[in-house]
Amino acid sequence: MAATSAPPASAHANGNGSLVGVAAPVGAPTNPMATALLTDQYQFSMAYAYWKAGKHADRAVFDLYFRKNPFGGEFTVFAGLEECIKFIANFKFTEHDISFLQSVMPMCEGAFFNYLREVDCSDVEVYSIPEGSVVFPKVPLMRVEGPVAVVQLLETPFVNLINYASLVTTNAARHRHVAGKSKVLLEFGLRRAQGPDGAISASKYCFMGGFDATSNVLAGNLFGIPLRGTHSHAFVSSYMSLDEIPDKALKSKDGSRLCQDFVSLVQEWLQKIQAANSLGGVFGDTNKSELAAFASYALAFPSNFLALVDTYDVMRSGIPNFCAVALALHDLGYKASGIRLDSGDLAYLSIEARKVFSAVEKEYNVPGFAKMLITASNDLNEETIDALNKQAALGCVFKLVEINNKPRIKLSEDVAKVSIPCKKRCFRLYGKEGYPLVDIMIRESEPSPKAGERILCRHPFIESKRAYVVPQHVEELLQCYWPGTSDKPRAELPSLEKIRSRCMQQLEMLRPDHIRRLNPTPYKVSVSTKLYDFIHRLWLNEAPVGELQ
Amino acid sequence: MAATSAPPASAHANGNGSLVGVAAPVGAPTNPMATALLTDQYQFSMAYAYWKAGKHADRAVFDLYFRKNPFGGEFTVFAGLEECIKFIANFKFTEHDISFLQSVMPMCEGAFFNYLREVDCSDVEVYSIPEGSVVFPKVPLMRVEGPVAVVQLLETPFVNLINYASLVTTNAARHRHVAGKSKVLLEFGLRRAQGPDGAISASKYCFMGGFDATSNVLAGNLFGIPLRGTHSHAFVSSYMSLDEIPDKALKSKDGSRLCQDFVSLVQEWLQKIQAANSLGGVFGDTNKSELAAFASYALAFPSNFLALVDTYDVMRSGIPNFCAVALALHDLGYKASGIRLDSGDLAYLSIEARKVFSAVEKEYNVPGFAKMLITASNDLNEETIDALNKQAALGCVFKLVEINNKPRIKLSEDVAKVSIPCKKRCFRLYGKEGYPLVDIMIRESEPSPKAGERILCRHPFIESKRAYVVPQHVEELLQCYWPGTSDKPRAELPSLEKIRSRCMQQLEMLRPDHIRRLNPTPYKVSVSTKLYDFIHRLWLNEAPVGELQ
Repeated sequence: MAATSAPPASAHANGNGSLVGVAAPVGAPTNPMATALLTDQYQFSMAYAYWKAGKHADRAVFDLYFRKNPFGGEFTVFAGLEECIKFIANFKFTEHDISFLQSVMPMCEGAFFNYLREVDCSDVEVYSIPEGSVVFPKVPLMRVEGPVAVVQLLETPFVNLINYASLVTTNAARHRHVAGKSKVLLEFGLRRAQGPDGAISASKYCFMGGFDATSNVLAGNLFGIPLRGTHSHAFVSSYMSLDEIPDKALKSKDGSRLCQDFVSLVQEWLQKIQAANSLGGVFGDTNKSELAAFASYALAFPSNFLALVDTYDVMRSGIPNFCAVALALHDLGYKASGIRLDSGDLAYLSIEARKVFSAVEKEYNVPGFAKMLITASNDLNEETIDALNKQAALGCVFKLVEINNKPRIKLSEDVAKVSIPCKKRCFRLYGKEGYPLVDIMIRESEPSPKAGERILCRHPFIESKRAYVVPQHVEELLQCYWPGTSDKPRAELPSLEKIRSRCMQQLEMLRPDHIRRLNPTPYKVSVSTKLYDFIHRLWLNEAPVGELQ
Repeated sequence: MAATSAPPASAHANGNGSLVGVAAPVGAPTNPMATALLTDQYQFSMAYAYWKAGKHADRAVFDLYFRKNPFGGEFTVFAGLEECIKFIANFKFTEHDISFLQSVMPMCEGAFFNYLREVDCSDVEVYSIPEGSVVFPKVPLMRVEGPVAVVQLLETPFVNLINYASLVTTNAARHRHVAGKSKVLLEFGLRRAQGPDGAISASKYCFMGGFDATSNVLAGNLFGIPLRGTHSHAFVSSYMSLDEIPDKALKSKDGSRLCQDFVSLVQEWLQKIQAANSLGGVFGDTNKSELAAFASYALAFPSNFLALVDTYDVMRSGIPNFCAVALALHDLGYKASGIRLDSGDLAYLSIEARKVFSAVEKEYNVPGFAKMLITASNDLNEETIDALNKQAALGCVFKLVEINNKPRIKLSEDVAKVSIPCKKRCFRLYGKEGYPLVDIMIRESEPSPKAGERILCRHPFIESKRAYVVPQHVEELLQCYWPGTSDKPRAELPSLEKIRSRCMQQLEMLRPDHIRRLNPTPYKVSVSTKLYDFIHRLWLNEAPVGELQ
């Protein structure tokens, strides 16, 4: 768990994990390339324009939120917070950065670069929903406050770090939900991801969303994610014959016996299988290089023998070769792990392989052989990745909602794109049965909703959509993650394991119809009456009046 | 161009750039996370099994190739080579890596980890098609030779580094082809890419494929790619009124005059526009915060004034506000750059905006105003990214083709997935008109095809598909990129600019029907008769014979 910081807990607050009274040190971003230059050029153009107008230190409030749940679903899992906090904790321009900026912005006054030299995020505040939480459209995942020029520089890296993280975590959580708790889900995306970091992030966030292990060794090293992997087709075809195995001896599992020639034992078993009536006629000659590869692999990993059986022909070569090696291992007290299928009709081949394993169990009285693990890769994995890739990005936006205490709104002809102005507090209201009923945003000056007290929840844009709610329990969503003071202690950045558990708990807490795959019910997101009225006053005020001609 | 190494050229060979006689130093991978642990777990399982069997040093030859062109096209641009070479030049396990591997593979003997401690790529050879070349299915992009255990460890990182790079470069090249040479193509993908590195790679390879600039400042810094960017909606809504601009003075472009109150000049122009008959009635009141933002931005960037005009209402507010500021700038000798549209019906709004600009040019006699730049973002950008994302990955594979001088084949029920065995040389044969006609793979022992000599080119799997070719010119495709000796000098890693030029030249050289968007003609890829015969002998030999029942 090298890269996840989990400082000792000191106090608890509203079930969201522990709060750190004194600011704990925050490590560097996982990817060393996540530096202050990782932003869009226009953030620097704007910073200069703000600075020229003497506006750079104006106190701005930005909301980071998304407009639509991904994958046709009605929920999203929020991820990427820890990387954002690590990013701002280390936000600083080096002299190298400054020289580069000067070279690409030669029209800017020198004093501007002196200003940039001094910039850091000590004056920025970040309020966020805890990582691994279930979240919904329009409700801010994060509220970022600070000098307008600085907070704008954070927009692009924050959205970059959150969009992909949340998309992958949500996708993984959806797969976990469909697969149920007992299935083992493995992630093998390294070779198909968008470069090294796309892959490393995918491994991290798949695990966060409920996968069990990854093939990516570096991700295992960075995040403590369990690793999985056996061998490839190339391993099989690298062998030519059984003569290539120089050391054929294998000790029995309990160490009591030494089999001098494991390879001969394997060959004997293969002959028996080929001759057996119950399996009879199914098997002709098997591929000898495959048999050599399996025997060699079993000699290296007698306790973890899992073989890829589709290099030549699954049913005519891979399965009988596997059974011969597995039965030889069994003679020495080992239990083979199973097979992996990577091509062909996976469903059909699984069934056929299972039949052979059952027949072997019966014929040779090997208890458990019928329950041999059958792992499918390739197609399953591609479906996962394709779903991920068809959804280009989560589409988080970062909108100015207040500056110098003046609420701001971004209008659009498309109502879905109108931003909700004002510095807001956000709450999740729970009903009698323990399910979350609705999220509500209120103005900062309003009193919080209280358990047992009736409150009117209004659709932010449609006047007629409103409902009274008497919450059984009220949870405040946004917590302080940066910088933290004695008044407003900084919330902990939990370990990856804890975030993963939070994600699973949060999904279990939702009403099942919100998370079902087919026709899920949208979860309601609302505003208070005061906020509703304010939004619509400001909207009228800012929108130009047309003239019909 | 900080990260691209371009050692001084010393000799030229077959038009593919210069060769470096003495091995030039190779820098570190762009992404510091691209280390020796960035691979699949099973590569280490196999390395151990090879080592246990005393097979780890067996000399293996692997081909890296793909089976299908992306985006429904008939060509691919090869990219990612430089990062692969940097990867192997720095390939080494640290003590930290070794400890980690020991912890996750506790069943392996200690001596195996001593072996890993000594592993590097000094004994690996890489032959590759030059980066930025147009390439086709089945032909090896790279041939990697070396100790089987080491080369297997390279499989995953190589495929990771090449798949995404080639996919992005091909996508960019396709966009450049459709847009033609004169259009400016900008890449703004940072916030939507798969993490920091997904974005940085996208910027690099979009530029390689023919884009003109990026918004990603770090990519600009790392690769010397031109940067672009103006301002966002938040900048516009951060202003409340014109009073917020403290310093209203602006010098004329030639420095001869000082306008004490640029803001008043803007307001005068706005009134004139609103009153003008030729534009009359089109404009009511415009949004004052938008006007303030534009005026402020123009004061900061009088020579580069490009305004985002859709924060409130493009035609009723954005365009008249822009025109007022642009005309005020014009009074002082500046030329406004143009507008950016980021929402709505971009085609319609472009046409309407152009009409207004033409009317302004006429009404106020401002030559060139009608030709104001109109930039469209959002939709265009999304289409690019969506196309990219719908194509999950290029799907490069890395297949063993020979071990200890023995050719190997990977069979499959799907003929398209059968690998082409043998260590091969690859050639591109050009016809009379200068177009490439066909690529041909031959066995290493065969004589090279020669210009003017007739050669039979055969489809690798379908006996009846074959054709005689008399090439006008023959180009050998695979060159030595690692490690390079005095016999086989190492080919240069050219600068990003040079690779970009190569990519454009290569596309211009192709017969147009191969690159057209609609129904492109497949380019032919073939093998020599000797190789054809060998493939089919080996295939028969390895495939199990079935028994009908």
